[in-house]
Amino acid sequence: MSRLDAYLEEKRLAVEKALLRFLPGESEPPARLNQAIRYSVLAGGKRIRPILAIAAAEACGGTEDRVMHAASALEMIHTYSLIHDDLPCMDDDDLRRGRPTNHKVFGEAMAVLAGDALQALAFRLLAENAKVPGVNPAAAAEAAAVVAEAAGSRGMVGGQAADIMAEGRRVEEADVVFIHQRKTEALIRASVLAGAIISGADSHVRQRMSDYGGNLGLLFQVVDDILNVEGDVLRMGKSVGSDEARGKATYPAAVGLDEAKRRAGQLASRARDSLAGLPGKTDVLADLADFVLKRES
Amino acid sequence: MSRLDAYLEEKRLAVEKALLRFLPGESEPPARLNQAIRYSVLAGGKRIRPILAIAAAEACGGTEDRVMHAASALEMIHTYSLIHDDLPCMDDDDLRRGRPTNHKVFGEAMAVLAGDALQALAFRLLAENAKVPGVNPAAAAEAAAVVAEAAGSRGMVGGQAADIMAEGRRVEEADVVFIHQRKTEALIRASVLAGAIISGADSHVRQRMSDYGGNLGLLFQVVDDILNVEGDVLRMGKSVGSDEARGKATYPAAVGLDEAKRRAGQLASRARDSLAGLPGKTDVLADLADFVLKRES
Repeated sequence: MSRLDAYLEEKRLAVEKALLRFLPGESEPPARLNQAIRYSVLAGGKRIRPILAIAAAEACGGTEDRVMHAASALEMIHTYSLIHDDLPCMDDDDLRRGRPTNHKVFGEAMAVLAGDALQALAFRLLAENAKVPGVNPAAAAEAAAVVAEAAGSRGMVGGQAADIMAEGRRVEEADVVFIHQRKTEALIRASVLAGAIISGADSHVRQRMSDYGGNLGLLFQVVDDILNVEGDVLRMGKSVGSDEARGKATYPAAVGLDEAKRRAGQLASRARDSLAGLPGKTDVLADLADFVLKRES
Repeated sequence: MSRLDAYLEEKRLAVEKALLRFLPGESEPPARLNQAIRYSVLAGGKRIRPILAIAAAEACGGTEDRVMHAASALEMIHTYSLIHDDLPCMDDDDLRRGRPTNHKVFGEAMAVLAGDALQALAFRLLAENAKVPGVNPAAAAEAAAVVAEAAGSRGMVGGQAADIMAEGRRVEEADVVFIHQRKTEALIRASVLAGAIISGADSHVRQRMSDYGGNLGLLFQVVDDILNVEGDVLRMGKSVGSDEARGKATYPAAVGLDEAKRRAGQLASRARDSLAGLPGKTDVLADLADFVLKRES
């Protein structure tokens, strides 16, 4: 196991533990809603957004404990977006991480509400991060605002809206960039930035972290697009080739598969370059760029 | 025009102005999403939650300016909940405030996303309230946490989930109370509390404000239930008698119409009593309890 693999495993377990602590109990009423929430949050996944927040915090002199509320919140926002994206009126997916999607198990109404409740819980945790010992409340509030902006109409939700509107249309590269910057990049960039801000990073370090997160986030989506073309259905736990079948706006559709792969390599380099010369321990973040570039699921 | 009417009109206009300032522009991309967001937020309404936050702030020595971010956020959370509640998979309503519901105009996908984006924007504003001059960032963060708890699985969303699960079943009074406490009371109580907390209220005043908000919130829902039985469809701008047709859990269904009216009077008295002896200007809040009791739409 490489050094990065060990780090990812350690942090993933810490995040899982925190999620269990923060989630409503499965027998707490209304039980059906809380079961729907837990079903999707506890379905596994790499927990890449919370781990990025923690790694960014550590690179800026902060600690895991001081950003765990925000880190958990980022995973909840990501999960709520998956629940809503899978709805019949959106991407209409039956399978997610190898299991039936939330609305397939709990019905559409409960899936909408589980997503809504998860977003509220995420912002409760971001607000409560202000009370964690050693955290400056003003910095925690600023991190919450950064995440909220990245999650909303100028970020993730705006990207999903543009994605749906672009379906079946001929896409230019500019459309793909617009969608990807919002749908995936925004929340990944905010994950890195939130960890840095809560850990007291100054404006110079924040800018570098923002550049790193932006390149990594775009890389993440380009690799996702490539995997949707040539990935392994068993490893992915979701349909392969589905983007093309739906006429989705993707990098391979806009610039071709080979060019998409070249761009991915370029984005990984740029992410690493953003970290050059920073004072803190940035090796995990640098390794993460390679990890995202080479991931197979 | 009574003193309260003049106050409500002045504050309603101030809130409308703030909402226009905080909402994304209608031509900002993705334009269709932003149009959907604006369609529902700018559809009118009494703006009772933001006005409660402002009135509570003023009763605790605060000012309208210092709580306007939070006040606007409360209206956005309320609006997003209406958009999602109206969806075909939920209450399946075609009419809201006398106009076609959001999904009837923009489609289901855009309605889900407009609601999601509004919730994110609400929590961005709550986070940014920490930066407003004269506001203690820790107090703003605490108010954000209170609102988030009231909006989530232990509050508004939990109430809607319980409401949907109770549809068509025989309801006991305890079920109605469980649903109403979450679906309506939680956010109205949080509106009052948020205004008080951001204005620096101590724990004694907060408790009284919480009692006031709780009684007022329950009153609000009991009156809503009564109006659904005997209200005027033109004034309400939505269907009358729809609760009964759907077998909804309401006070009139659980305890009868006359007893529901007696409870409403009792809740208004209790709301006023919660304010007794408080140092600040609480007359607006007291008048608001009568206003809610006597409203006809």
